[in-house]
This record gives sequence, structure tokens and C-alpha cells, in this order.
Amino acid sequence: MRADTTDTICAISTAPGVGGIAVIRISGPQAIAITDKIFKNKKGTSLQQQPTHTAKYGTIYAPNGDIVDDVVLTLFKAPHSFTGDDTIEISCHGSQYIQQTLLNLLIKEGCRMAMPGEYTRRAFINGKMDLAEAEGVADVIASTTAAAHRVAMNQMRGTFSTKLEELRTQMINFASLIELELDFSEEEVEFADRTQLNNLAQTINTEIERLSNSFATGNAIKNGVPVAIIGETNAGKSTLLNQLTGEERAIVSPIHGTTRDTIEETIVIQGTLYRLIDTAGLRTTTDTIEQIGIERSYQKIEQSEIVLWLTDITGTLPQNAQEIKQRSQGKKLILLLNKSDKLTPQEQQQRIEQAQKEVGEELPILAISAKNNEGIEELQQQLTAYTTAQYSLSDTIVTNARHYEALTKAGSAMQRTIEGLEMNIPGDLLAQDIREAMHYIGEITGQISTTDLLQTIFSKFCIGK
Amino acid sequence: MRADTTDTICAISTAPGVGGIAVIRISGPQAIAITDKIFKNKKGTSLQQQPTHTAKYGTIYAPNGDIVDDVVLTLFKAPHSFTGDDTIEISCHGSQYIQQTLLNLLIKEGCRMAMPGEYTRRAFINGKMDLAEAEGVADVIASTTAAAHRVAMNQMRGTFSTKLEELRTQMINFASLIELELDFSEEEVEFADRTQLNNLAQTINTEIERLSNSFATGNAIKNGVPVAIIGETNAGKSTLLNQLTGEERAIVSPIHGTTRDTIEETIVIQGTLYRLIDTAGLRTTTDTIEQIGIERSYQKIEQSEIVLWLTDITGTLPQNAQEIKQRSQGKKLILLLNKSDKLTPQEQQQRIEQAQKEVGEELPILAISAKNNEGIEELQQQLTAYTTAQYSLSDTIVTNARHYEALTKAGSAMQRTIEGLEMNIPGDLLAQDIREAMHYIGEITGQISTTDLLQTIFSKFCIGK
Repeated sequence: MRADTTDTICAISTAPGVGGIAVIRISGPQAIAITDKIFKNKKGTSLQQQPTHTAKYGTIYAPNGDIVDDVVLTLFKAPHSFTGDDTIEISCHGSQYIQQTLLNLLIKEGCRMAMPGEYTRRAFINGKMDLAEAEGVADVIASTTAAAHRVAMNQMRGTFSTKLEELRTQMINFASLIELELDFSEEEVEFADRTQLNNLAQTINTEIERLSNSFATGNAIKNGVPVAIIGETNAGKSTLLNQLTGEERAIVSPIHGTTRDTIEETIVIQGTLYRLIDTAGLRTTTDTIEQIGIERSYQKIEQSEIVLWLTDITGTLPQNAQEIKQRSQGKKLILLLNKSDKLTPQEQQQRIEQAQKEVGEELPILAISAKNNEGIEELQQQLTAYTTAQYSLSDTIVTNARHYEALTKAGSAMQRTIEGLEMNIPGDLLAQDIREAMHYIGEITGQISTTDLLQTIFSKFCIGK
Repeated sequence: MRADTTDTICAISTAPGVGGIAVIRISGPQAIAITDKIFKNKKGTSLQQQPTHTAKYGTIYAPNGDIVDDVVLTLFKAPHSFTGDDTIEISCHGSQYIQQTLLNLLIKEGCRMAMPGEYTRRAFINGKMDLAEAEGVADVIASTTAAAHRVAMNQMRGTFSTKLEELRTQMINFASLIELELDFSEEEVEFADRTQLNNLAQTINTEIERLSNSFATGNAIKNGVPVAIIGETNAGKSTLLNQLTGEERAIVSPIHGTTRDTIEETIVIQGTLYRLIDTAGLRTTTDTIEQIGIERSYQKIEQSEIVLWLTDITGTLPQNAQEIKQRSQGKKLILLLNKSDKLTPQEQQQRIEQAQKEVGEELPILAISAKNNEGIEELQQQLTAYTTAQYSLSDTIVTNARHYEALTKAGSAMQRTIEGLEMNIPGDLLAQDIREAMHYIGEITGQISTTDLLQTIFSKFCIGK
């Protein structure tokens, strides 16, 4: 279905179900005229006369004179509305009967039911926001953690778009220098300073790479930082899992498309989402079958970013300690000496020092009692400290796979531009590469878009937004 | 918990869950000052300066400077708001994270979470509506059918209250005539014209009785008109049930507190709710055990208002036809000759005429085919015609058990007044009775109320209303 932008659309914009109030949003060229037919206020003034950004109390009537509801109507006149078109928000009593009757009435009077994301799509089409910002709106609504919310909010508010605009300006700058050269190519004079061009291309490329690389962070923020919990079965893994997930469990919804057998739980600590990956016991064995299972556990370490290595504080470190250390290279490994409740604080300290000698000074070690909830807060602090340092939320972060793909393509085109400069290839070929890079950046913000792309993007929105 | 009316309260007023937008309502003396601390718009104007009934686009900031959301804020200044206090509605993006964060922020800045129905309770306390109107708000939100919605809307908009006010005026009138007499009682002169007094008391009493009697209608509208479907097991009862419930089944929620074994389904036809009561087969038998079962079925006819009597069109009327007719006296009985698809139209007509002779001219008879959905629309029309005639929605209808109880008590007091007038009892006793009647009417509108009563009434509301 094509989204005709001259239609006047309507939808319930608040969550489905019964509430104190519900909001129905009407937007389009006929929004005021249609609503005027069914809404009457005490003074009898027409909506046409009502100034923008004002609220009026009044009554909605059905054509047969029946009262549908007493409502508050807020008017936003074009272009000063979310969509950029005339928009009316009717705040009615939150019964489903009223919501449905009001919607039917609006449709009878000439509105069309809005398609998913159609308000935001109109905002994009009317130039109220670019495509990346529009996608940010959906991400803001879908955010369940502080970190995801923050990144989505930045995207919606245009921080990412501003970065892209800067890149585009630099690219235009680059292209015009090249094209100046092309205009005078007959005279076989190299106008553009190739060193300057190279510097510019490098700057652009570095920024694109930084943005591309941030996708790993973006992905972790959106889908959770992967944490593997390893250790023998009797080390207390499930008790630790329960302690960690305890409080905030209820507010985190499961991630779809992940298999239950790898992902145990997701938890939120200090506004960051973590995916806890369960593993089978890890120990040295000569049994071939068991070795396969152990190898699989090591592969799960590969998928993780943080490794929580759990062992019994009353025993010695396992035989495979060095292998675990080695396999966890590049990961944030934390050694947890569990069951600290079985030892005195002094004994605990001795065990920590002993273990530290065995595994090396650089490895953080914590004595915890998963059972008694001791040391868990410290562990959470360490996790937070790591992610805070690792994922600087102050930089622009790419969270969207579509953006990442476009950035990767733009990056390749920039690479070719840089190589071309080094090989001193003709300006018209350089210009072609930089234009291609610009094209991909333009795809992100929607300066270049197709109806199909818009359809794909906005169909993922909820109705009413 | 006491509802302190000097607190500033906040709550999510829209349905729980994720939506395009959500509305958080803040109301109380500090509403503007508190919101001013967290909301900034582009122009930087303070909310104190913002005129009532205007909407402003702006940003909500956490104390640490984090952006919580871009929102539209609508201001309603006292007394021109729903509650009568300064009220702000924040329309934010509908993520649960944002809703929760915003709510926490408001509480940190000095708001208190609103208790269920507290906004409406304040509207009542501030004299924006009386108690019956306030209860109408909850009924409006709970309405699932056109009829229930209409009755609740009338109550919320004060039609019932106006009626009560008229009654009260007449009672005051009556009381002052009596009291005039009392003032001059020393002189032993009967001032008040007892005939006039009697007429007045009769008028009041008639109106109270009419209102009391309307509770049966109100109850049927709110909880469904009870319809018994009777007939042999092979007569096609379940097929008819399925045909009737088919389309509208999904939008009707089950009635709580009713046992599954008596109430089969509720359906909505033309905006009216019906409760379909299933019965066991009804036939003449000498078996004692079976007779008990049959007697139970007859009792279910007692509970119903409409009886659909189903029998096979290809057979003759059952032996107990006369008993069914007799037991259904005072009910709307409709004879349905089912399986009409087995006969030609002509044969159907012959069967109808034959049956009509047996059961009498006054009984409506329809040939239907529950299986082929033939004659069902005609049946629905008959049901609608009956309820439309029976339940005139144009009159004021009492739907609330509390109101019914108070009206019954007021009615008793009026009865005593009338009897007192007849027995020529002294004016001070008459005055006492009429004052008691006024007291009960005042209980309905809340002119007389206790904290406990208010607590009971408003605790049934949803939070955010």
C-alpha cells in the first residue's frame, strides 16, 4: 500500500487497552475541517479560528446527535506540528468503546487509518527530520535501558545526522577540489594540492571508520553486552545468575531470536543491558566426547566480551587456569572466588593473594558469596566500570544495521579514493569514488531513498507514531 | 492511606504498555513549579508565564543534564482544569523506560504518585463535579457497549444529578412549608395546605420510584440482558449460540463473578449487551431425578428476561409446550423453528401457521437455520426491537447499586412522609422524614459523604484518572 501524503490520517497514538485517557491523532490537510464537523465547544468557535498550540475542552458528537465523549482537543497548525501538517490530538476517556467509536467516526468523516509509522514518515517527507532521526524515534520508543535510551535519543535529536552532515560537507569540499581540476583538465594542470586532498580523504575515512567501529558498541547497548559465566558445575554459577538477575529481572524482556540454550538471562545493571551466556563446565580431560563439549564452552567465551570465571574459594585454582586465561585474551576476564562465607576475611585475603600470584597481577580477583549476596555489588561495580570505559556514550554511536552497512560501503569508496590518490589516478575516477561515498552517506539520512526503503523502515514502527 | 489534597500528584494517565505516545498528568498547587524545574523550551520562557490551555514543545532534563525526552506539555491553570487545580499534561514518547524515568523524576522533584481515582476525587472535592458524576467517569471508562456508554455518559455529564437536584429542590420546598408551620406552631395554626403537601410528596415519590425501577434496566445495560435458550439437546442450541456470538465475541470481556456453568456467553447486538443463559433439555418426564434437572432449567427461565425457545421445524411442538409458555409468562418468549434448511419456504410457512395455532397468536415465531445463518438477522432485529422498547435510554437510568440503595432508602422515607400526611401526624415528625429522604439523595451526589465512602468509591478507579 502506498502512503498517499495528501490523505488525512488518524490513529490511536497511546498504548492499546483501557486507560484513564487515550489520545487520537489526526494529521493532514483536512484535519481541522474533518474534526470541526464532530467537535463542538461551549463558545461554539470553529477550529479554523483556534490558534495553534492551544487546547480546547468540548464534546464529540456522532452525526445522529449522540454524544461520543467530552474531550480536550489540542491543535498544532502546519508547519508547527510533529508531521509538519495540520495536526489535532484528541484526548478522550480511555475506554476502548470510545476510542473505537471516535476512530470510526473520523473515518466516516473522511480520515484514513494511519499505517504503521506514517506520522513519522510524513515528518520525514515534510523535512521535519531526516531518515536517521526518524529511525531514532522508533528506537526511542523501543528502548528499555538508560544506555539504549540515551543512544536512541541522540540519534532522534540529530547528533548522528550532524556528524553525517559534517562528513558530507567535507566530501563536497573534496569533490569540488577534484572537479575544479577536471574543468581545467584540457590545460593539463593539476590544480588540487594532492597532499591537501589526501589529508581530507584521511580525515573523512577516519571518521567513517570510527562510526563503523562504534556499531559493536551500539549493538551491545541495544542487544546487551555478552557475558560468559564459566566454571565447574559446583562453583555456584546458577546461584550467581540468580543473584545478578534477581531484582531487575521483571523489567527486561527476552531477546527474540536467541536460543534459550545459549542465552540464560538478560539483566540491567546501572542502565546497561547484559546478556548472560551460560557455559558447561570447563576442565582438563582426555575423554574425546567431553573435550568437544569443553571446546564448545570455549567458543562461547569467544562470543562474549566479559568472562566471569567462577571457582570455589576453598579449593585451589583449576588445572586449566592458564588455558582459560589464554582463551579469554581480548576479553574482560574477572576471577570470582565464590563461597567466601566459608572463610574468615583474613583467610579470604590469603586466598586472593595466592590466586593473584598464580594468574598474574593484571587479572582482577573478587571474593564473593553468591549465596549470601556478598561481593555482588562490587562485581556489578566492576562490570559498570568496564562498560563505562569501553562504551563511551558521549561519542556518536551507530546502532542500526542499515546505517552500519551504508557506512561500510562509504568506507570502501573512501578507501578506493585514498588508494587512487596514492596511485595518482585521474581526477574523474577519484570524483566517481567520492560521489559513491556521498551516495551511501545520503542513504542513511534519506537524501537518497526509495519508496521500498521507506516502506521497509516505517513498517517496523507502531501504529499511531 | 489518606488522600492529602495539598500534595501535587502525578501518574501515567494513558493505558499501560508501549505506545507511540504516553501522557503523564501532574496536578496540584506545585504542578507548575515542579515541572518548571525539569522542562525547558527553546525560548526559555517559564511555565509560570505560559497561558492556560496552551501546548509547548520542549525537553525534559534530568538533574544531571541528561535528556529524558522531547515532549509536548499542555498547561491547564486552576480552576480551568479537570481537577480544578493547576494541571500539566506531558505527552512523551511511549516507551516504558521514558514513562518510568519521567515519573521517578517528578517524584524526586516533589510530586507524589497519585492513588487510584485521585484526579477525579480532587475534581469532586474542588466542586468540579458531584459524586454521581464522578462515578460516571469510571463507568464511561469501563463501558464496552453503546448502551452502557450512553447511560454512563449521561451520568458523567450530570443528567442524573440534575434529576436529583430537582428532587432535592422539591424536598426543600416541602420541608420549608412544613417548617413554616412549625415556626408558628405555638399559635396552633395549620399553615401548610395538606393537599398541596400531599401532591408534592406524591410527585417526589413517583420520581424516586421511577428512578429505583430503572435500576433493573441499568443493571441489564451494564451486565447484559439475560437471555435463556431452551430446547432439546438436538434442537441446535449450540449452533445458534455460535451464530449469535460469532462476530462480536472477541470484543466482549467475560463478566466476573458469574459461574461458567450458567452463563455461556455474552454478545453485543446493536450496541446492547446480552447474557446468554444455557439450560438443560426441557421435556415431560416421570423420572424424579430428571425432573429436578428440568425444574432447574425452568428456574433459569425465571432469571432471564428473554426466552429463546428452540425446536426442530421438521417435528411437532414438544409435549410440554403449554408448560413452557406458562413458565415464561412475563418474559419475552420467542419460538424458533430451527433447521429451516430442511424444508421449502412453503413448507416452512405451513409449519409456522400450524405452530401458531397451537401456541396462540400472540407468540412470535421465526423459522431459522442456525446452521446456514438464515433468519438470525431477523432474530437479532426482534431482540433489538424488544430491548429498545423495554429500555428507553432517553430517560435517566440508575446503574449504580450504591445509588439504588440510597434511592430505596429515600423512597422509604418518602413513603413514611406520605403515610404521615394521611394520618395527619405533627409537622416536626414529617420534617424529620423529609430530611431523611434528602439525606439519602445527598449521599448520591456527595453533598453528604464520609472519607470512608470516598475511599471505597475512588479505590475502584484506575490510576491516572
